[in-house]
Amino acid sequence: MKFLIFAFFGGVHLLSLCSGKAIYKNGISKRTFEEVKEEIASYGDVAKAIINLAVYGKAQNRSYERLALLVDTVGPRLSGSKNLEKAIQIMYQNLQQDGLENVHLEPVRIPHWERGEESAVMLEPRIHKIAILGLGSSIGTPPEGITAEVLVVTCFDELQRRASEARGKIVVYNQPYINYSRTVQYRTQGAVEAAKVGALASLIRSVASFSIYSPHTGIQEYQDGVPKIPTACITVEDAEMMSRMASHGIKIVIQLKMGAKTYPDTDSFNTVAEITGSKYPEQVVLVSGHLDSWDVGQGAMDDGGGAFISWEALSLIKDLGLRPKRTLRLVLWTAEEQGGVGAFQYYQLHKVNISNYSLVMESDAGTFLPTGLQFTGSEKARAIMEEVMSLLQPLNITQVLSHGEGTDINFWIQAGVPGASLLDDLYKYFFFHHSHGDTMTVMDPKQMNVAAAVWAVVSYVVADMEEMLPRS
Amino acid sequence: MKFLIFAFFGGVHLLSLCSGKAIYKNGISKRTFEEVKEEIASYGDVAKAIINLAVYGKAQNRSYERLALLVDTVGPRLSGSKNLEKAIQIMYQNLQQDGLENVHLEPVRIPHWERGEESAVMLEPRIHKIAILGLGSSIGTPPEGITAEVLVVTCFDELQRRASEARGKIVVYNQPYINYSRTVQYRTQGAVEAAKVGALASLIRSVASFSIYSPHTGIQEYQDGVPKIPTACITVEDAEMMSRMASHGIKIVIQLKMGAKTYPDTDSFNTVAEITGSKYPEQVVLVSGHLDSWDVGQGAMDDGGGAFISWEALSLIKDLGLRPKRTLRLVLWTAEEQGGVGAFQYYQLHKVNISNYSLVMESDAGTFLPTGLQFTGSEKARAIMEEVMSLLQPLNITQVLSHGEGTDINFWIQAGVPGASLLDDLYKYFFFHHSHGDTMTVMDPKQMNVAAAVWAVVSYVVADMEEMLPRS
Repeated sequence: MKFLIFAFFGGVHLLSLCSGKAIYKNGISKRTFEEVKEEIASYGDVAKAIINLAVYGKAQNRSYERLALLVDTVGPRLSGSKNLEKAIQIMYQNLQQDGLENVHLEPVRIPHWERGEESAVMLEPRIHKIAILGLGSSIGTPPEGITAEVLVVTCFDELQRRASEARGKIVVYNQPYINYSRTVQYRTQGAVEAAKVGALASLIRSVASFSIYSPHTGIQEYQDGVPKIPTACITVEDAEMMSRMASHGIKIVIQLKMGAKTYPDTDSFNTVAEITGSKYPEQVVLVSGHLDSWDVGQGAMDDGGGAFISWEALSLIKDLGLRPKRTLRLVLWTAEEQGGVGAFQYYQLHKVNISNYSLVMESDAGTFLPTGLQFTGSEKARAIMEEVMSLLQPLNITQVLSHGEGTDINFWIQAGVPGASLLDDLYKYFFFHHSHGDTMTVMDPKQMNVAAAVWAVVSYVVADMEEMLPRS
Repeated sequence: MKFLIFAFFGGVHLLSLCSGKAIYKNGISKRTFEEVKEEIASYGDVAKAIINLAVYGKAQNRSYERLALLVDTVGPRLSGSKNLEKAIQIMYQNLQQDGLENVHLEPVRIPHWERGEESAVMLEPRIHKIAILGLGSSIGTPPEGITAEVLVVTCFDELQRRASEARGKIVVYNQPYINYSRTVQYRTQGAVEAAKVGALASLIRSVASFSIYSPHTGIQEYQDGVPKIPTACITVEDAEMMSRMASHGIKIVIQLKMGAKTYPDTDSFNTVAEITGSKYPEQVVLVSGHLDSWDVGQGAMDDGGGAFISWEALSLIKDLGLRPKRTLRLVLWTAEEQGGVGAFQYYQLHKVNISNYSLVMESDAGTFLPTGLQFTGSEKARAIMEEVMSLLQPLNITQVLSHGEGTDINFWIQAGVPGASLLDDLYKYFFFHHSHGDTMTVMDPKQMNVAAAVWAVVSYVVADMEEMLPRS
């Protein structure tokens, strides 16, 4: 489905680009901000063409439908799994068939952990089957399981105060949900802190803002010198129930069985495709999401949506017959969930060219209705991004907030490259995050259309402006 | 925690009741509506005392805490289960210890079905473990399960149109959620309709307005002369996924194993307690909820909340030292989920006294924030109920809508007895209904306080007014 912007808007902007107005020299800006504003404003028709195609035109719902086809076919895509391998191969073909350029796979080594069979049963005060999801990188239990009394705490401080009660027990954390970054510490550090005081295992209340008896998995981290103990998440409901029981002095005994196992690292790939720049092909605007997911649900929201609006951004630009001056590079990361493993190796390999990266973009916090961007960069760069976002006025999505970030792009941002992440409606994000509920049912095709339009306009305009985004 | 209204409001109302104003004779009203309004208005201080005690006073959060203790101790309470038996015995003791009168158990025979072990695995196009919950009264599969191709339909009409494709298949219903009463027909009738066209089993999209991969169980009904086939619910997510797969012509094969079994009917009880009427003890206002639940979650919302605000209504009235002229009777029904089994037997036994039932009340649609009552009765009775509800102005809960109902009280309503049900915020009710998510986490102590206040004011005032509610 390839057609040109000329059909819609008479090619005004593209013709003006052909006039070759020279406004800078040797990469050093001689332009005033007013001139840059004028340049950005000249993309108004391109932005409208992208919006029209993505939201109202023939491309509408495409990223949703492409995503549904992948995740229905493959299912979830855990680091080290056959599913992830299969998804990468499918995406490699998809991107080639889409007519993108320089489609290739960049090899990386990634962790391989499997949860195996797992179960938890409350034996006292009554028999109750507890829904669990083992946490990524956890060890398993002995085959007969670990049967022990429970110590319920609501925070690390309480664990410290009651350290003498923890030895030989299963520590249950019933920490309230405050926000993800604060509460997730119980998932990542809960086992280590419990092990330090002699616990045999830890069960962590899922990091979820709402629950229908849904366990939420995710990575956890052992610490050198601290014994490794098995650790899993439980539901908000069971954590609250055990907390109530404990507050009445009722003895709780749980039998925990986990077949979790870590295998040797395995081969995987970051998946790359481009629209090569017409004038500065060595310079790059990078758009990205991660292709791996947890091993439950479909990984549709985290991060199928981000990966697929990133692909869609390039598809939209290509369909409109546009080719920016700089190279637009799509990267679908592997093993993000294990700590940006694919992205780190990409950074190690490519950082030699860091001066050529104008902007790194990642969508990894949902593709619900966007309200703008989060951005990290110099004040000058931010002023430019605000002008770029004003092109999205037809969608009323113009905010540029602080703290652009993403596990996969933070390496670049920390090294000074401007970075942007999609700002969208997160209300339900942690209802589904890392749970069996992360499926296509969560996704909204219309919201994905809009998110893709934002992504395409920003990436295209920044890739096509005469100058790279200024750094600090 | 017993104290008198006098302490709060100087006993104005109670003193006025003692003056013995005779306004009717031989049960036939000689009063104008203005006189009835005046009588109801005189309960303003009583209503305030009940509200103060329930919402702001020493009784606040009591119904929530009592409920948590029961459902944490016992768990879910399926008809025919040991859990239900235990819950009934505990409630019998609770009601006696609370100082209520005529606490007793009325024997009834109830169904005994157990789901046993159950599982469903998608074998084609890819291996995927499907969350299911067998539906109440379903037969099981043979031990090796039923392995068959899937036919996905979105409605009964489509099943009819595609009847020739259904033979030997597992029918998957992916009906959209419209509202409970319309959509639940797929759960209750799905197996029968599928069996009529030769299907081997049926899987029904859960009747849920929102899902985090949550199956919702419930009763289903076989029909004489139609083969019985196993039937279970699946999640919204899996129903939608299979529907997408089918729309792409992809063959789906599922292996379904269900150990479900129906045992002979068993003994159970409706649990009854009263505050005996001071003047017309043979006349009754009945307040109720059901004590049984499905066998998942804790049955906290359905219908622990309804049962416990009904108990709380009597506790509040007793704590205030009030004794209405008519008997206030609490009934905690058994086996409601199997079709009002306990309530039907209660009706058969007690209908001889139907002329003595002034009002039957049931709360079985959540105890979230109430906005009023649903009421079925004559226009005169409705006008009286509107006056009664005006006593709840301090809580701004004064609506009287139509269609008062409840599985357990409908027998009486259909026979002409006025009936009322609690009208509350149902927004999330069908998120949790009949799912693992029906736990104490759903319940809000403050909302239960308010619901109990409404329940207590209405039941007390109607039980204490000089005349019974007029019938048609």
